Amino acid sequence: MKNVLGREIPDYIEGYGKVELFKGAFKNYGLKEKIGVKVNSVKPGEEKLLDSIDDALNKIGIKDGMTISFHHHLRNGDFVLNNVMHAIAKRGIKDIVIAASSIFPVHEPLVEYIKNGIVTGIVTNYMSGPVAEAVSKGLLKKPAIMMTHGGRPRAIESGDLHIDIAFIGAPTADTYGNINGVYGNAACGSLGYATVDAEYADKVVAITDNLVTYPACPIEISQIYVDYVVKVDSIGNPAGIVSGTTKITKDPVGLKIAKIATKVIELSGLVKDGLSFQTGAGGTSLAVAEELKNLMREKSVVGSFAAGGITGYIVEMLEEGLFRNIFDVQCFDLKAVESYRHNPKHQGMSGSMYGNPHNKGAVVNNLDVMILGATEIDIDFNVNVTTGSSGVIMGGSGGHSDTAAGAKLAMVVTNLIKGRLPIIKDSVTTVTTPGESIDIVVTEWGIAVNPKRKDLIEKLSSSSIPTMTIKELKELAEKMTGKPEAIEMSDEIVAIVEYRDGTVIDVVRKPVD
Amino acid sequence: MKNVLGREIPDYIEGYGKVELFKGAFKNYGLKEKIGVKVNSVKPGEEKLLDSIDDALNKIGIKDGMTISFHHHLRNGDFVLNNVMHAIAKRGIKDIVIAASSIFPVHEPLVEYIKNGIVTGIVTNYMSGPVAEAVSKGLLKKPAIMMTHGGRPRAIESGDLHIDIAFIGAPTADTYGNINGVYGNAACGSLGYATVDAEYADKVVAITDNLVTYPACPIEISQIYVDYVVKVDSIGNPAGIVSGTTKITKDPVGLKIAKIATKVIELSGLVKDGLSFQTGAGGTSLAVAEELKNLMREKSVVGSFAAGGITGYIVEMLEEGLFRNIFDVQCFDLKAVESYRHNPKHQGMSGSMYGNPHNKGAVVNNLDVMILGATEIDIDFNVNVTTGSSGVIMGGSGGHSDTAAGAKLAMVVTNLIKGRLPIIKDSVTTVTTPGESIDIVVTEWGIAVNPKRKDLIEKLSSSSIPTMTIKELKELAEKMTGKPEAIEMSDEIVAIVEYRDGTVIDVVRKPVD
Repeated sequence: MKNVLGREIPDYIEGYGKVELFKGAFKNYGLKEKIGVKVNSVKPGEEKLLDSIDDALNKIGIKDGMTISFHHHLRNGDFVLNNVMHAIAKRGIKDIVIAASSIFPVHEPLVEYIKNGIVTGIVTNYMSGPVAEAVSKGLLKKPAIMMTHGGRPRAIESGDLHIDIAFIGAPTADTYGNINGVYGNAACGSLGYATVDAEYADKVVAITDNLVTYPACPIEISQIYVDYVVKVDSIGNPAGIVSGTTKITKDPVGLKIAKIATKVIELSGLVKDGLSFQTGAGGTSLAVAEELKNLMREKSVVGSFAAGGITGYIVEMLEEGLFRNIFDVQCFDLKAVESYRHNPKHQGMSGSMYGNPHNKGAVVNNLDVMILGATEIDIDFNVNVTTGSSGVIMGGSGGHSDTAAGAKLAMVVTNLIKGRLPIIKDSVTTVTTPGESIDIVVTEWGIAVNPKRKDLIEKLSSSSIPTMTIKELKELAEKMTGKPEAIEMSDEIVAIVEYRDGTVIDVVRKPVD
Repeated sequence: MKNVLGREIPDYIEGYGKVELFKGAFKNYGLKEKIGVKVNSVKPGEEKLLDSIDDALNKIGIKDGMTISFHHHLRNGDFVLNNVMHAIAKRGIKDIVIAASSIFPVHEPLVEYIKNGIVTGIVTNYMSGPVAEAVSKGLLKKPAIMMTHGGRPRAIESGDLHIDIAFIGAPTADTYGNINGVYGNAACGSLGYATVDAEYADKVVAITDNLVTYPACPIEISQIYVDYVVKVDSIGNPAGIVSGTTKITKDPVGLKIAKIATKVIELSGLVKDGLSFQTGAGGTSLAVAEELKNLMREKSVVGSFAAGGITGYIVEMLEEGLFRNIFDVQCFDLKAVESYRHNPKHQGMSGSMYGNPHNKGAVVNNLDVMILGATEIDIDFNVNVTTGSSGVIMGGSGGHSDTAAGAKLAMVVTNLIKGRLPIIKDSVTTVTTPGESIDIVVTEWGIAVNPKRKDLIEKLSSSSIPTMTIKELKELAEKMTGKPEAIEMSDEIVAIVEYRDGTVIDVVRKPVD
């Protein structure tokens, strides 16, 4: 069976079930249903504070086959997932599905649990490091399910992803379960990805190392969603949670790309009052933000909002008055955390509000300009940010597909050649984001505009920016590197790539060693 | 059929259905279910702004028999309910059920719609003025359903109260449906009661007179819940929305009651760090706040939170550091609105978080001291704040039953005699709040402690406060006024009084003229 992008996908996948094929980025809208939720109502006088994770597991009655969830705001500093899994593993529990919004190298202990069948399923929007490698080797019993940051809340709200227990790493919590991420040793700022877990899981456990007296204001996750509170010594290592600084690239190629990208943004006509903007925290992406900042100053433009994972660079733009507001689903550095704590213009948003295609309009729908990365791009503009050149999983959509679908100008910025390999292929190893939602690819050698964006081609036609078709750009790269050999893949499916609407856009197969 | 309080209630009521009898304030807890919600998902590029209320009614397809909802933060200054009903009435639509969190004298036009069958049902937590009088006269086809501020979100979340269209008066909104109550001509502060309507109604329409460019931060109600936005000239009259000032009573009797009440609070042992407190905006209740303020200063006590409908007096206590936080479901005056806008310690809460008995613990569960009013109290400590001495509806629970159930010390403060009638009766005309959740009655002549609070009787035993049984207090009043004649009631049920858990605690019958 092939989906609309020509990706070969079985109609039934063992450990996943019946496949709903991707039909196009905007084909699956209309009336959608959020499922009901069971709530254990709490009487006056009842308490929620427990002594340990073990106590919580006892109270809830952890069982084989349960799905347990985690949020990833503590990133590579997270202790919560490992500590909870340690407590579960000790009990001889099997067949756990880990629904973590992202998985990082710090979660390496999962590999052992995968090998011995304690963990048999993973649902995540992004994974890198040993767990991703283990999944790529086919060690996980069921194929991993790769979602997007907007697709995950959609799946949870619709009931496609049922969570038995949500464990919420809480930088600050009170005894009755109010949570915020702005105070405490592990302060990470916005808790946007955890909101939906709290709202929809059968049971919700707050795990905190900063238990404060009631109430833990400002409240990001309310007591009305939390069953139990557990105090632990530490929920994470601050050094891994927020980087002290995120840095603009100093690489001249990256800076050149950023200059071209900003010129394109200018020529697109979007740089005017009300401009909305999002970029990742990569060096080249930040360089675009820096160039755009200068352009906005020059033109005296006041943007409406900057969104996404937020860095100090974006905070500076807010503070300078270049944007009226920030929408923050996740803080990438300490400056962002501090701004989120203090500045009412720095608005938090849930993962659902950020990118869920099946609510009444996510923030991504209002994005003008989105700066995206890519591991591979193909001649149909499909982008891979899930697997590396060896076919091994080293990322995932995160918000890639969500923002690409929403933004008026979804722009991939990338070196044309990375690690002596051309970025543009006839066909990407894995489709993460469909080409129909990518408007333009910007490289140091020139740009390629998606042919469906005739308006943009027209706007750029008189510029001095080298403009090519995507095939020409591909051939240019191949002239320099030679045509790379295709990676050989087995038939074994190790991961399913779900588009944000829950349809299957691709599968990841195990590379042949 | 009689419920546990001995109130005579049919097991089936025409226009209401099968009756679930009240069994006790804490009998109906355990696993509860929130229902699913249908959502019309919004694609990038789709817009929400409509030209008029009529346009919204067209888009949605308003039909006979629909339930439409309103919030009451604009109180007696509200134009939204009347304007929407005017547009509906013009269409010849019949059989509308109005689910308004409260109904005020300004909503008098409803009386005509009740008379001609355009409106045949009312669900509300409080009503006063012409509509309440019309309901009392039996003009409404179906009995009105009187809920509580916590019971309403419970009913909506559980599906007991299904809302077809929620109309949300929005002091500020952007074109994509983000709403806040802190800016605009009709700024009313917290929009706590509207939250659940936005989350659960089939369709949600924001009606605003202050349409701002996207995004309308700080966001109280998110774009993900709003289908349409309508710009109108005015959503309300600020003079009726917030009173410039709420005033402490100058009546010596009220001041005396406040002094006794505060002494009781002190002797209860609750005046210590972490104290939590709520009071209404009545003159005597505010006088208690004033006395308590002095006591807290004197004892250098820092309370945890003050909750509820918030007045400037409570804001002053926050600003002075007497409380660490405020939980605000509704602002009563301009000072409260301003504080809510600027002070991060002034935390908003939804009606569900405030008082819903069937979530994982409402804020009322954490109240130490609650100061309550009463129209009548009976010798079982049952309180009536629903009907007046003539049997006519002139109020309703609001948060009365919710806070009484939650607070450690639920205290009724009242003159023993009002309008030459004794407040304490053998049996109240209508039970709003069950006696088991009332701990003490404080009058200018003395206090009566609920016999189940042996601990409190013990603590007060050595004080000089005149302490009586509730019967003694009743007899004392009757000595002064004579025993009032009972109001004669017909059999016709004009309203159902639901306790916060959805069971029927009483019915209101039509008084005999």
